[in-house]
Amino acid sequence: MSQVAVLGAGSWGTAFAKVLADAGQAVTLWARRADVAAAIRDEHVNPDYLPGLRLPDAVTATADPREAIEGADLVVIAVPSQTLRGNLGDWARHLAPDATLVSLMKGIELGTLKRMSELIVEAAGVEPDRVAVVSGPNLAPEIVTEQPAATVVACTDPDRAAHVQKAIATRYLRPYTNDDVIGCELGGAVKNVIALASGMAEGLGFGDNTKAMLITRGLAETARLGVALGADPLTFAGLAGMGDLVATCSSPLSRNRTFGEHLGRGETLEQAQAATRFTAEGVKSCLAIRDLAVKHGVEMPITEQVERVCHEGLDPRVAVGALMSREPKSE
Amino acid sequence: MSQVAVLGAGSWGTAFAKVLADAGQAVTLWARRADVAAAIRDEHVNPDYLPGLRLPDAVTATADPREAIEGADLVVIAVPSQTLRGNLGDWARHLAPDATLVSLMKGIELGTLKRMSELIVEAAGVEPDRVAVVSGPNLAPEIVTEQPAATVVACTDPDRAAHVQKAIATRYLRPYTNDDVIGCELGGAVKNVIALASGMAEGLGFGDNTKAMLITRGLAETARLGVALGADPLTFAGLAGMGDLVATCSSPLSRNRTFGEHLGRGETLEQAQAATRFTAEGVKSCLAIRDLAVKHGVEMPITEQVERVCHEGLDPRVAVGALMSREPKSE
Repeated sequence: MSQVAVLGAGSWGTAFAKVLADAGQAVTLWARRADVAAAIRDEHVNPDYLPGLRLPDAVTATADPREAIEGADLVVIAVPSQTLRGNLGDWARHLAPDATLVSLMKGIELGTLKRMSELIVEAAGVEPDRVAVVSGPNLAPEIVTEQPAATVVACTDPDRAAHVQKAIATRYLRPYTNDDVIGCELGGAVKNVIALASGMAEGLGFGDNTKAMLITRGLAETARLGVALGADPLTFAGLAGMGDLVATCSSPLSRNRTFGEHLGRGETLEQAQAATRFTAEGVKSCLAIRDLAVKHGVEMPITEQVERVCHEGLDPRVAVGALMSREPKSE
Repeated sequence: MSQVAVLGAGSWGTAFAKVLADAGQAVTLWARRADVAAAIRDEHVNPDYLPGLRLPDAVTATADPREAIEGADLVVIAVPSQTLRGNLGDWARHLAPDATLVSLMKGIELGTLKRMSELIVEAAGVEPDRVAVVSGPNLAPEIVTEQPAATVVACTDPDRAAHVQKAIATRYLRPYTNDDVIGCELGGAVKNVIALASGMAEGLGFGDNTKAMLITRGLAETARLGVALGADPLTFAGLAGMGDLVATCSSPLSRNRTFGEHLGRGETLEQAQAATRFTAEGVKSCLAIRDLAVKHGVEMPITEQVERVCHEGLDPRVAVGALMSREPKSE
């Protein structure tokens, strides 16, 4: 049995705490809000994020990060990607010297264009081989109802990857190991942009051929960027690439897909925000992905068109026309 | 302008004739039934297969294969896969000496376990580099309504691939070339088996995580078989692999997905056949794919479970349990 800290009590952090407990670990969940920590600790519920879920008894909670982190051999991080750097400075000094850090986060830090594991290495001052990434087609509401799912544990240290794999394997979640941290993280970051494009196609009234084309060519441009950053292209055909992308583009639970549908119907960014009452992650991250692509000289035509629709007022019909009329290519 | 024969006036053959005509070619469609040929030739319609479609004037039709084939520089074949061998013996003598043969067929010949292009080479007595394969996420009813789509033209001769690419490029269909004939054909053949599995998950009440897992791991086992047969693993991340699979598993138009749903709800093969009034292609082809996997010593756990559900009466819930409890793996 491992002593595990899960930092962040949003829907995925909370669901992951349940997975760890079901796999036999003792889990302390850190919640930013004291009332959320109290509800989890005293009543085993987190109604704001996962209504209807009763957490296992092996999950406790605290609003004190030190209490969660000290003595933990696995430290799982699931906070909003743009707040990670600020939190880590405070948390790093409580880390046990050989603790494995596990990132559940999907995003690129705006400005620095760093992936979440890079940011952890830098801000927590740990070696890269102490950081693992978990990513895959894992919609939290389906995980907590124990529907069969699979995921990837990526770490450059194969022993740590196998350790995390064992710590989260349950009857309903099947983890695979992988040594390609860069590829797994990039798949998770770019999928939100592709899901916006797929939602736009839906909003324009197109069917499954069009969406399958955007998903496949979207993954191809993700892989091109990945290779430029040092990833293995085959990672993108796996659970953290194609798997996560397909689940996100198919699910009615996906915010990015839903937001894209509004844009596809001809709404402006402001109108879509007003109608959905949120801003989809991909709206911000398409800027960071576009910047990364430019920096590395990689062509990402779908990301480019999504950026133009979101931030330059381009008509989505014109964007589709631009994608279809590009010069003939090999695959 | 090319003179093109399209042999087979089912829904995909007919839709492809429209694509060729829209791209500027003169097309003669061969239909087995004289009444279908007459309706296409005289009224430009094929109501049995694509009701509502009006074919372009550049498409004519005949029930005489010789009339279609003689003088054609592109000969497109779209007949049912298990009837191909019988037809080819009759057709081969009409072929122009340098005509390119284009296969639209997806399947493995039962018994011989040959892919369609292998069968064409053998039964028509042509060199392999004269045979191209077109495959991708191309649901015919969406193609004929000109929804944006992409496809792959695979041929070992790059000049022929580029020639076919040019001959089918339209405003709504974007073709990519590829030299991996084996990978493109295998993706199309195995996808029906994976679509059955995905439909079963749907019928069992599972959501998008489970389906994304089956699609991704299903493609991984397809790629393993492909590599054993000489394919490039990256082909499976492309339009003829992932793209076609995602469209098939998403579309309510897919027979294999629908049939799998019936099995997932607990119906026997006979009950599902009675309810749907058809037998899905994957029900037969899972036997051929399983045999190919055994012959080449490749592990295909999803195909194996689909075969056991279809042909050995295994409960789909037990099949899912067997997939989830396999020993831990790397991706």
